[in-house]
Amino acid sequence: MFWEREANRDDPKWTDLARLAGGRAGVAVLGATGSVGQRFVQLLADHPWFEVRALTASESSAGKPYGEAVAWAQTTPLPPAIAALEVRSTDAASAAACRAEGCRLVFSALDPSVAGEAETAFAEAGCTVVSNARSHRMDPDVPLLVPEVNADHLALLRRQRFASGGAILTNPNCSTIGLVLALKPLVKAFGVARVHVVTMQALSGAGLPGVPAASAVDNLIPYIGGEEEKLETETRKILGRLDDGRIEEHEIAVSAACNRVPVIDGHTLCVSVELEAKASPADLRKAWETFSGQPQLLSLPIAPAQPVHYLDAPDAPQPRLHRDLERGMAITVGRLRPCNLFDYKFVTLSHNTLRGAAGGSLLVAELAIARGYVDGLKVEQ
Amino acid sequence: MFWEREANRDDPKWTDLARLAGGRAGVAVLGATGSVGQRFVQLLADHPWFEVRALTASESSAGKPYGEAVAWAQTTPLPPAIAALEVRSTDAASAAACRAEGCRLVFSALDPSVAGEAETAFAEAGCTVVSNARSHRMDPDVPLLVPEVNADHLALLRRQRFASGGAILTNPNCSTIGLVLALKPLVKAFGVARVHVVTMQALSGAGLPGVPAASAVDNLIPYIGGEEEKLETETRKILGRLDDGRIEEHEIAVSAACNRVPVIDGHTLCVSVELEAKASPADLRKAWETFSGQPQLLSLPIAPAQPVHYLDAPDAPQPRLHRDLERGMAITVGRLRPCNLFDYKFVTLSHNTLRGAAGGSLLVAELAIARGYVDGLKVEQ
Amino acid sequence: MFWEREANRDDPKWTDLARLAGGRAGVAVLGATGSVGQRFVQLLADHPWFEVRALTASESSAGKPYGEAVAWAQTTPLPPAIAALEVRSTDAASAAACRAEGCRLVFSALDPSVAGEAETAFAEAGCTVVSNARSHRMDPDVPLLVPEVNADHLALLRRQRFASGGAILTNPNCSTIGLVLALKPLVKAFGVARVHVVTMQALSGAGLPGVPAASAVDNLIPYIGGEEEKLETETRKILGRLDDGRIEEHEIAVSAACNRVPVIDGHTLCVSVELEAKASPADLRKAWETFSGQPQLLSLPIAPAQPVHYLDAPDAPQPRLHRDLERGMAITVGRLRPCNLFDYKFVTLSHNTLRGAAGGSLLVAELAIARGYVDGLKVEQ
Amino acid sequence: MFWEREANRDDPKWTDLARLAGGRAGVAVLGATGSVGQRFVQLLADHPWFEVRALTASESSAGKPYGEAVAWAQTTPLPPAIAALEVRSTDAASAAACRAEGCRLVFSALDPSVAGEAETAFAEAGCTVVSNARSHRMDPDVPLLVPEVNADHLALLRRQRFASGGAILTNPNCSTIGLVLALKPLVKAFGVARVHVVTMQALSGAGLPGVPAASAVDNLIPYIGGEEEKLETETRKILGRLDDGRIEEHEIAVSAACNRVPVIDGHTLCVSVELEAKASPADLRKAWETFSGQPQLLSLPIAPAQPVHYLDAPDAPQPRLHRDLERGMAITVGRLRPCNLFDYKFVTLSHNTLRGAAGGSLLVAELAIARGYVDGLKVEQ
Repeated sequence: MFWEREANRDDPKWTDLARLAGGRAGVAVLGATGSVGQRFVQLLADHPWFEVRALTASESSAGKPYGEAVAWAQTTPLPPAIAALEVRSTDAASAAACRAEGCRLVFSALDPSVAGEAETAFAEAGCTVVSNARSHRMDPDVPLLVPEVNADHLALLRRQRFASGGAILTNPNCSTIGLVLALKPLVKAFGVARVHVVTMQALSGAGLPGVPAASAVDNLIPYIGGEEEKLETETRKILGRLDDGRIEEHEIAVSAACNRVPVIDGHTLCVSVELEAKASPADLRKAWETFSGQPQLLSLPIAPAQPVHYLDAPDAPQPRLHRDLERGMAITVGRLRPCNLFDYKFVTLSHNTLRGAAGGSLLVAELAIARGYVDGLKVEQ
Repeated sequence: MFWEREANRDDPKWTDLARLAGGRAGVAVLGATGSVGQRFVQLLADHPWFEVRALTASESSAGKPYGEAVAWAQTTPLPPAIAALEVRSTDAASAAACRAEGCRLVFSALDPSVAGEAETAFAEAGCTVVSNARSHRMDPDVPLLVPEVNADHLALLRRQRFASGGAILTNPNCSTIGLVLALKPLVKAFGVARVHVVTMQALSGAGLPGVPAASAVDNLIPYIGGEEEKLETETRKILGRLDDGRIEEHEIAVSAACNRVPVIDGHTLCVSVELEAKASPADLRKAWETFSGQPQLLSLPIAPAQPVHYLDAPDAPQPRLHRDLERGMAITVGRLRPCNLFDYKFVTLSHNTLRGAAGGSLLVAELAIARGYVDGLKVEQ
Repeated sequence: MFWEREANRDDPKWTDLARLAGGRAGVAVLGATGSVGQRFVQLLADHPWFEVRALTASESSAGKPYGEAVAWAQTTPLPPAIAALEVRSTDAASAAACRAEGCRLVFSALDPSVAGEAETAFAEAGCTVVSNARSHRMDPDVPLLVPEVNADHLALLRRQRFASGGAILTNPNCSTIGLVLALKPLVKAFGVARVHVVTMQALSGAGLPGVPAASAVDNLIPYIGGEEEKLETETRKILGRLDDGRIEEHEIAVSAACNRVPVIDGHTLCVSVELEAKASPADLRKAWETFSGQPQLLSLPIAPAQPVHYLDAPDAPQPRLHRDLERGMAITVGRLRPCNLFDYKFVTLSHNTLRGAAGGSLLVAELAIARGYVDGLKVEQ
Repeated sequence: MFWEREANRDDPKWTDLARLAGGRAGVAVLGATGSVGQRFVQLLADHPWFEVRALTASESSAGKPYGEAVAWAQTTPLPPAIAALEVRSTDAASAAACRAEGCRLVFSALDPSVAGEAETAFAEAGCTVVSNARSHRMDPDVPLLVPEVNADHLALLRRQRFASGGAILTNPNCSTIGLVLALKPLVKAFGVARVHVVTMQALSGAGLPGVPAASAVDNLIPYIGGEEEKLETETRKILGRLDDGRIEEHEIAVSAACNRVPVIDGHTLCVSVELEAKASPADLRKAWETFSGQPQLLSLPIAPAQPVHYLDAPDAPQPRLHRDLERGMAITVGRLRPCNLFDYKFVTLSHNTLRGAAGGSLLVAELAIARGYVDGLKVEQ
């Protein structure tokens, strides 16, 4: 009834193998005062490759020091050097200035209502934008990346023609990431034809101010706008095959039902799958536990050592206990058992703002650099 | 975005039409200090047909006044007359005494570890036992009743031959009741071949002390021992057909995944169904809203006026807002939409200790009396 | 360990003695879409004296049916007749129209940022405004009323000279009401010189959207803007003496520390008091249990039978269990014990949106009418 | 509105200056399966001085591997080497065996019902017992230690005459520790005559199973058995003066009111103080921020760099955001403001199972070793 592995949050936060040539590179965070924006700032504060040089937010925050503009709600203190940065507005002028000041890489935590246009402006200014917003995710020439799953989709960038050398990469929806990391080992080993998924998603996924407190005590909300559609469509793109410079979507059929529950961090998914080939529970477990990808091969700083952990306890995984495994970058799977309607049922859990939003985007950026897709940034092993 | 109907908890608590001949009848509650036991006491305290005359609990409570033995945790005060009753042990001697003192009807909130034997003892002593425990639910000659759904299964009692005139009736598991009330109108109108259900169940369903508080803040538990099996098997019995004095189980295939979430009362279910006949969303909605059964026909005191309510709000039903509809005896359904893998998906919510445990058992008792199955108790309309 | 009294939420909701001459009177609710506004609508929906005829909200809601404008979050359904009312803007034109259509009484749940001016406009139009906002509470000619405590302060209305016959009455801050109801019996019997109070206040007190959910799970906030000052100053006014048409504030010294905790409804207060005369615990208890006032004498519809209940359980009162006593209109006190620094310590609990905001305001209105302070409305016993 | 300092949980977990001569020493944990016992195991798992060699629990767990006996509920995995240890019973035979196998140091997380006798048995067997139980805390020859506050009380050990060389040291109640760390800088600088404290304590302080979940959702409990007495008496002993080998209690008058709130970890205290000398808010703040003691001088592994941090945000400290500062070993203070009844009011927060129970005990052990009070264990700088 104990955890099988020792990987944990007391591990060093970053792996130490892959190094950036020429020292830390300046980066910008767009939408830095929101919930995901703060997570970006927190993770970037001591990242071995990156240094936060610019932060943008809405008009009303522009001109203020970040420390005043933000209602900092992370469990680690805001570093004074970042607190002192003056917040910029999120527009084409800021884009040009950021690029001129040497920020080749930009993380976007923008609201979808403004992300589409603003991210394009930064790419046109010559920045590589890694976005957590949904605006460009389904664009045919924009890779939608889970680095362990579809690193080859990076090749789509060759079809993106920003004259400036800029580019847009996207990170999937936070619940999609957990699902796809659990599915990919099965897809690879046995094929998966159909997936039924019911989510119980954390409050932090709703951003700030998000759900009113009165809806989150002695209650749950069986609805998250647009979320079911994202799970159903993004999964097919991510699992899709790169064919002649285009993504051919995977034919997997997905049905999703999404719920908001009173949990701070960590999305829990109840999944049923129909496999294409026969497989025993031991086969599935082995597929998960031996799964790894480019981030592990390349020893990327934020990559987990083992992306998928299977837990034996009958009542695992649980969000509060297991979301932080491998600094929140690994997912956990448990309760594998036969399903009366499909082949198997299981439960999977992923940290929605680490593996899911800010950490996932950071891993996308690390991958893109390591694979030589960001002009001017290069990794030395 | 408002509720469609006026039925609410400010309605009179009991309907006023069916009356018991000869005034209030004495009843006993077995396992009266636990969570469900307390709900029985609360509901019986002012029931128009019944009067609590005897309460049993474990050896350690026997002999104490109920008011001392119980850690009363209901939101209404414990009536002094009931608080003063001396708690009895739960054994054959108590059974004989209860019957001798005129209690023909006994409600059991016993733990399954003792329920089987104790309930048989009370039935042998001549009492009609209505049980919320799982011990006898799947016995072939014991009816497992949701009064709106399978009142005809009462006929099984004819096969129960307690020489004394006693009998055992059972109430299903609290999550099964909500599922079956949502399914029955569809089964009747269109046929249902397959059902996938994921539950998010309230803490009160775990009894006392139940889940430790540390597991219920910023957390959920994706496991409830034995619950998935109960949903999968009880549903088939309840929807089954009475054939020559035996229940032929319904062939519906059910797959369930059960979770405990930080909600006080109210089980929320995400359901996908495959129908046997084509039906539009409007057809389903009509099937639910026009559904009623014997409890409504007989105007039983605790029966809801309309057992199933459909809510239009995109984010309904929610446990804290909707569980108390029709004094907790109606279920609510919402979010009906197509499913990529089955025909339809929807969400249903039921109050697990009102509709689900104590209130459901009370309705079973009222039905059995109204239909003449309890010796010596008779309803006059 | 059980509650001493039978008064409970299953009591009839309204007492049945005092009747309004001429049938139900039309009333308006200002700020009807917010949290307190919804409570007003809920309570007024079946009030024996009143009928909701007009609802106001912000410009963006004006013109819509109330059922569309409001995100109804009460546990009872919104009555269709009220849902159909067209929302009006909150301005002088609405005030004139309301009065012209016969609404002599207006309940204000407005935000303090707009309440001051708007309430004056309605009073000038000839309406009697009962306000839950803080804007006019400390005005010297405006009564700040807890009807059991300082009904005589109604006489201040004689100094309010709205030519139209209109008037403004106010209801105290929700945490002040609980404190003052617990203190007044002690002030009357023994005198109270000093009071130290630490509050643990419910989320519903913050209105909508209020506290973000992420601050209300596994957390508390040791700060509520302006709340400590309100407790310290309002208490002195309410306990003050009416002298020659003016309120002379009570000299009681109050120190308050206010906290927001993850509770839906019910403010819990830890109170220490220094008395002016010696008194035993039994004396205090008797003072509380025998306390009553004009609402009880006049049998006002929403008045509790006994305003203050003392609970014997060592761990009472608790918000979820005891806030609904006497339909939320009674307060509970428990844990009376000596204090090392003052004379006694105790805990008191009151329902902040029933006794505290909407219900308290309603009781103020009922009192004002019964005492003849509202032109054109009269009670017949 | 940001944190002033960079100290955070991403700091290295242990300071690296003081080293134990001769490598890691074997230690035992008594009561290792409970909530505090698990925290001991978690902290000891990678402690630079100690190695867990023995674990005890109740009879029912004895003989099982720890990994099976424990319901591990920490957020880091249980190390396999510790999981494999066979659990021993908690008796004199185990004591003799532990000592024989080289465990000179023993941490006790025993329940007070068994701690008194068992701890004496281990001390008699020659072990130095550092206990988190209340059993021996108020014994006149047992030091009750908060290492930054009263390290000189260690001298009491000279009066403890266990012939074997064993000894008993104690760690205060978890809420007392936070209070005393906030008070000591004020006592030292200005003198403190009277303290009024109201606590809002975390669920983890109640151990396992602790509070039922149903009491911890939409609720709080204004009572913790024995807690108020502990705060009132332990504070006087800890702040007391060592005089001729005895503790003369401090004359400070303390009144405490204790509440359990739905927070996982972190006790929040609302404190009012009466000082003996005049002091400005800036004086108090300086006293807190410059406070340090022996643990900082000796660079003990688990010691925080700065024991007390003052936070400027108007709504700080908050448990979820600030409890983990300096790996949970620093306390935070905020909201300093004048009090109408005393001199000042403020809020203080401490992590109850890190600074408060297991971490605090570990610091006591480190101090005792560094100061040469544990036979056979010695620090080299």
